[in-house]
Amino acid sequence: MDDIRVIEVKQSVFADNDADANRLRQQLKEEKTFLLNLMSSPGAGKTTLLRRLAAELEGKLRLGVMEADIDSDVDARAMRQVGVDAIQIHTGGMCHLDADMTRQGLRELGSANYDLVILENVGNLVCPAEFDTGAAKNVTILSVPEGHDKPLKYPLMYETCQLLIVNKTDVLDYFDFDRDKVVAYAKMRNPDIEILFVSAKTGEGIPQVARWILDQAEAWNR
Amino acid sequence: MDDIRVIEVKQSVFADNDADANRLRQQLKEEKTFLLNLMSSPGAGKTTLLRRLAAELEGKLRLGVMEADIDSDVDARAMRQVGVDAIQIHTGGMCHLDADMTRQGLRELGSANYDLVILENVGNLVCPAEFDTGAAKNVTILSVPEGHDKPLKYPLMYETCQLLIVNKTDVLDYFDFDRDKVVAYAKMRNPDIEILFVSAKTGEGIPQVARWILDQAEAWNR
Repeated sequence: MDDIRVIEVKQSVFADNDADANRLRQQLKEEKTFLLNLMSSPGAGKTTLLRRLAAELEGKLRLGVMEADIDSDVDARAMRQVGVDAIQIHTGGMCHLDADMTRQGLRELGSANYDLVILENVGNLVCPAEFDTGAAKNVTILSVPEGHDKPLKYPLMYETCQLLIVNKTDVLDYFDFDRDKVVAYAKMRNPDIEILFVSAKTGEGIPQVARWILDQAEAWNR
Repeated sequence: MDDIRVIEVKQSVFADNDADANRLRQQLKEEKTFLLNLMSSPGAGKTTLLRRLAAELEGKLRLGVMEADIDSDVDARAMRQVGVDAIQIHTGGMCHLDADMTRQGLRELGSANYDLVILENVGNLVCPAEFDTGAAKNVTILSVPEGHDKPLKYPLMYETCQLLIVNKTDVLDYFDFDRDKVVAYAKMRNPDIEILFVSAKTGEGIPQVARWILDQAEAWNR
């Protein structure tokens, strides 16, 4: 296997991240690259879901992945093992990515070569929600073992996302997780949020997530 | 049930949090209050573990709990349901607590009345590890569903903790979680870290955690 490209990104010099994110979004629109920002707690299953999605999207879109972490290259390596173009972004201890850090990653990846770039943000329900990365859409994953109360505790994460993916439905029987409550709590934070239940392990629900992404990417490039 | 005391803490005015944390630690030492800082990802089981621990420690120590969250009072409420003195700390969107925020909580709780105060930090593997709260000891929980690779991705969390509690061992059969690997990775970050495997759900391993805390508190008050 090739060496994993690891890029150490620097925090933005721009005081106004929102304005910078809008500039990046405009640039991506002109490139016809759909950037999806994927957020969750540590261990909610972002990388496993991405591997499933990559297989589902194969032949339909040119996919590039940027894996962000404080340290290690295990996620980029996991994507490369299934033949997906992926780079690893190290944040130098930072708990999130801002728009300029995202831009540094996109430059290294060569975003113009891809129809869809998925940014796997740092595993964290607080800080990533506070910084617009320039992505066209934000998606959050909540895994069943974490419990259905997370929208109560981390409001901004649910307010800023267009799609909530509830992952690890294969272990629903082993946890006290209430599907109705998670829907109610997420809608309380964001009445427009869409919600899909999946198991990245078994593949259940993955076609629906792929369909959602294809629809959003098509609307973006129209 | 009584109303839950919720305190909205303000970010520290002290430039040097480390110095402030040392001042707080000294004050707690004089009070003979052992402050334990409990950290983990969202949904790793901090509150469930605390409820079990409270039952195990009953009659041995006077226990007070401070539950920190961005929003909601579900955790303080859960503790009060089992008869534990608990207050809820809201961080005003902040992803962590610093020493002065912790001090504000201790003042509201009345720390001098307790032998042991457990601070349940914001669910986050990044930021809480960067800020010394003034606690005597730091403990992190990793739950089985999160995976054994977390010490590779969040180095500082494992470097700053004296005890790693691996929780949700009752679901080991349903996840690809390697006990030997998590031990090796955690020790790679911190050769002195102690590691205990528990299930807060079934109670397995809880007496060992209580023993660890009692020993540490005794050493602190000696």
